[in-house]
Amino acid sequence: MSDRITCPVLRARITSAQAAAALINDGDNVGISGFTGAGYPKAVPAALHDAMVDAHGRGEQFRIGLWSGASTAPDADGVLAEAHGVSTRLPYNSDPTMRSLINLGEVDYVDAHLSHSAQHMWFGFYGNLDVAVVEVTAVLPGGLLVPSSSVGNNKTWLDQADRIILEVNSWQPRGLEGFHDIYYGTALPPHRRPIELTDPMQRIGEPYLRIDPEKVVAIVETDRPDRNAPFSPPDENSAAIAEHVVDFLRHEVAAGRMPPELLPLQSGVGNVANAVLAGLGDSEFTDLVAFTEVIQDGMLDLLDNGTLRAASSTSFGLSDVGARRFIDNIDTYKGRILLRSEEISNHPELVRRLGIIAMNGLLEADIYGNVNSTHVMGSAIMNGIGGSGDFARNAFLNFFLTPSTAKDGAISAIVPMVSHVDHTEHDVHVIVTEHGIADLRGLSPRARAERIIERCAHPTFRPALLDYTQRAWTERPRARHTPHLMGEALSWHQRYLETGSM
Amino acid sequence: MSDRITCPVLRARITSAQAAAALINDGDNVGISGFTGAGYPKAVPAALHDAMVDAHGRGEQFRIGLWSGASTAPDADGVLAEAHGVSTRLPYNSDPTMRSLINLGEVDYVDAHLSHSAQHMWFGFYGNLDVAVVEVTAVLPGGLLVPSSSVGNNKTWLDQADRIILEVNSWQPRGLEGFHDIYYGTALPPHRRPIELTDPMQRIGEPYLRIDPEKVVAIVETDRPDRNAPFSPPDENSAAIAEHVVDFLRHEVAAGRMPPELLPLQSGVGNVANAVLAGLGDSEFTDLVAFTEVIQDGMLDLLDNGTLRAASSTSFGLSDVGARRFIDNIDTYKGRILLRSEEISNHPELVRRLGIIAMNGLLEADIYGNVNSTHVMGSAIMNGIGGSGDFARNAFLNFFLTPSTAKDGAISAIVPMVSHVDHTEHDVHVIVTEHGIADLRGLSPRARAERIIERCAHPTFRPALLDYTQRAWTERPRARHTPHLMGEALSWHQRYLETGSM
Repeated sequence: MSDRITCPVLRARITSAQAAAALINDGDNVGISGFTGAGYPKAVPAALHDAMVDAHGRGEQFRIGLWSGASTAPDADGVLAEAHGVSTRLPYNSDPTMRSLINLGEVDYVDAHLSHSAQHMWFGFYGNLDVAVVEVTAVLPGGLLVPSSSVGNNKTWLDQADRIILEVNSWQPRGLEGFHDIYYGTALPPHRRPIELTDPMQRIGEPYLRIDPEKVVAIVETDRPDRNAPFSPPDENSAAIAEHVVDFLRHEVAAGRMPPELLPLQSGVGNVANAVLAGLGDSEFTDLVAFTEVIQDGMLDLLDNGTLRAASSTSFGLSDVGARRFIDNIDTYKGRILLRSEEISNHPELVRRLGIIAMNGLLEADIYGNVNSTHVMGSAIMNGIGGSGDFARNAFLNFFLTPSTAKDGAISAIVPMVSHVDHTEHDVHVIVTEHGIADLRGLSPRARAERIIERCAHPTFRPALLDYTQRAWTERPRARHTPHLMGEALSWHQRYLETGSM
Repeated sequence: MSDRITCPVLRARITSAQAAAALINDGDNVGISGFTGAGYPKAVPAALHDAMVDAHGRGEQFRIGLWSGASTAPDADGVLAEAHGVSTRLPYNSDPTMRSLINLGEVDYVDAHLSHSAQHMWFGFYGNLDVAVVEVTAVLPGGLLVPSSSVGNNKTWLDQADRIILEVNSWQPRGLEGFHDIYYGTALPPHRRPIELTDPMQRIGEPYLRIDPEKVVAIVETDRPDRNAPFSPPDENSAAIAEHVVDFLRHEVAAGRMPPELLPLQSGVGNVANAVLAGLGDSEFTDLVAFTEVIQDGMLDLLDNGTLRAASSTSFGLSDVGARRFIDNIDTYKGRILLRSEEISNHPELVRRLGIIAMNGLLEADIYGNVNSTHVMGSAIMNGIGGSGDFARNAFLNFFLTPSTAKDGAISAIVPMVSHVDHTEHDVHVIVTEHGIADLRGLSPRARAERIIERCAHPTFRPALLDYTQRAWTERPRARHTPHLMGEALSWHQRYLETGSM
């Protein structure tokens, strides 16, 4: 038995994953830990998969509502999707099997702003939470939990669930104790108070999650790594995008719009984001700080070389190499990395107050600056909006980053009209592709179109975009604020669906 | 000379509107007061119009950048548009002459979230502010100003402008002194602090606007009413919408999701909003409070009959009768009405903390819950997003209200895909038409579509909407999360443009 569970009352609840899974019933809403493949439960979902498959084999129904922090992994979302055991899923998913069931219409997916997900649960929008299944690093006396490699919505799930199942994962370094700052000052309106955080690294909470030990129905011991996704070095396009961003930041500092140490950085997940971090690491910028959702390998590099002074986040999202580096040198990161609940890491109040520089990817942008982050050709969900809306809306400055084409040039990332809108024209500051940067701040829609087409679109698609704008701008008198051709605005997507190319 | 100007230094700056307008130059950015037709400058714009027409007659260029709080009036926006003297306009407009020039492409319009407009000016997104032209009620010694019937962006314009022109309007009741709460605690990141407001009626500022008297280049005396728009009694559709909203709030209280005195109300402008207020006034609800942008006649009614305990706002938006009622009984409203800067009335931090119930109109919604508040048939701007995004995104609960059809039934307010998105599917809670109410909280896109079509669409359009969804849901396997037909999604708008009916 692991020495990670020192609470005598709770040691008595240690059981097998199968026995724990047997405490979850058809129709239950289940809140699991996990964010970007870190800190998700690693044993109970597989056991639950088996129970579901057995039940289905007996002709019984067994499906749950599955709530998480954000994305998990094949051994959580993946196995439950394989078992056809999920009826609803929120607030974010990136698992391919789960995505497929969502797009087949089998799973009802509620794609929510991450800063909204916990409070919407508290508001009663999602119904009762029956079970929480949360991975932790250790269980201390009195029901104090040392959180794992992500915090996500764990505080809310543990507070609100009728029953709690804990997974204690020995793979998570015991030294994670002290890396967390769990804020217990949230409340429901009309009882909310200001969140008194004015510095990204300020502690406003406690290092532990608290639970009512009476609610714990099972504890399962595991020793398994997080889903640590491989880390690719920046390709040519990503490097070009990074260069544009770093140049732009230099320009903003030179113009006096931002201090030399910039403002707190938020960086989305993926290779373009990692490339921008690498670009910052190679630049003259130093003593920066991050207030973000996810700490990727690129951010460890910046912490190591001094570009980044410190980082506040809700999760890690490391490669195997990155995870090993963190674990082996965990003491050097203590005090320089803080993990918070996602309602705090993404909170509109804090994002606006701190003046975040937000950097997120996109699937497509249109000529007027609307951004689609979620849907392929208007209908099929990719992942979800995640925290991009929390950060973009309230940022001091936001960037949306993308290569100018996808699918070997068959798809233009710049289109006449996006097929789905996640970030409106009112919310998008700067769009960046490998070809250049379009600063849209203070511009009217037509001025934005000129700049986006000229600076960001791939040269192959520029003539067709210009042709569209010219015809839209002249066809309808008295409709030139945001001129569109309704019969043609989505024709690029239709053409792609019919021919495989825009 | 008016007794409204008791500061001896500033009395010496009293001059004519013509002389004041002569201090504004071609190419200047001019920040004017005004919000919902209240508190805008009433003399200088007309004089500036004449100067512009003269200059144009001499073959000279004379155009300004025009920034405001929100909408003004024919004698401000209107006359400057008539003079073809505006190059850019932000952050909101509802003047028909100005709208026409925006839609002709003559005026570059930047349609911004109202909570963003002041900070984006401070961030440097809009360039230098040359002149502020601000209406006030009185000028006290030491450069203290008693604000007028709106606050809007006046604090920012007065702080940031190189030169200040004041209009002192004797029509504004002298008793407005004490109705304002001007917060001087804003700062630029990284120096921002929490805004320590936890009750809608809490004072966090001062009753006066402060200025540097040295910057005042002219003071003009006026005695003219605000643009007080006529107030229509609720029509049948508006009354039905109001009934649905009041019933829904009752249901939320009964379900324990909201206290009996509800949470602070925000109500958009217009007859549907007034109808909802009237519906609340006729209901059992009492002791409510408003945290909103605009105080319309309907809100005065609620303050008079005790439904509403108090209201925080940034502006009035009254009819002639309502303005007279307010002025004649001003002392009874003192302490029960507070006017704040729009960056405070609409602040994301406060809207989320207080847990606002937001109620706003829309132009069209689509079957998946995306809302268009600004554009007619995708291209022509109507007014602008105003504060609807500030409130909807951060609200505890938001309603979007609309009759189910427009133009005598030629236009359906519920369409397959909106032609412009201002509020995304991630941000819309409840849609209401005269036919019913669609509660979208916690629903997947397909579930939302079923509910919106069934509850909100006009019966004439339901079969065509169902037909669209059925075909979209079956045509493309693996694209059923938000199923759309790219070749047909905007065909209703195209049909309207071609035939005059959807």
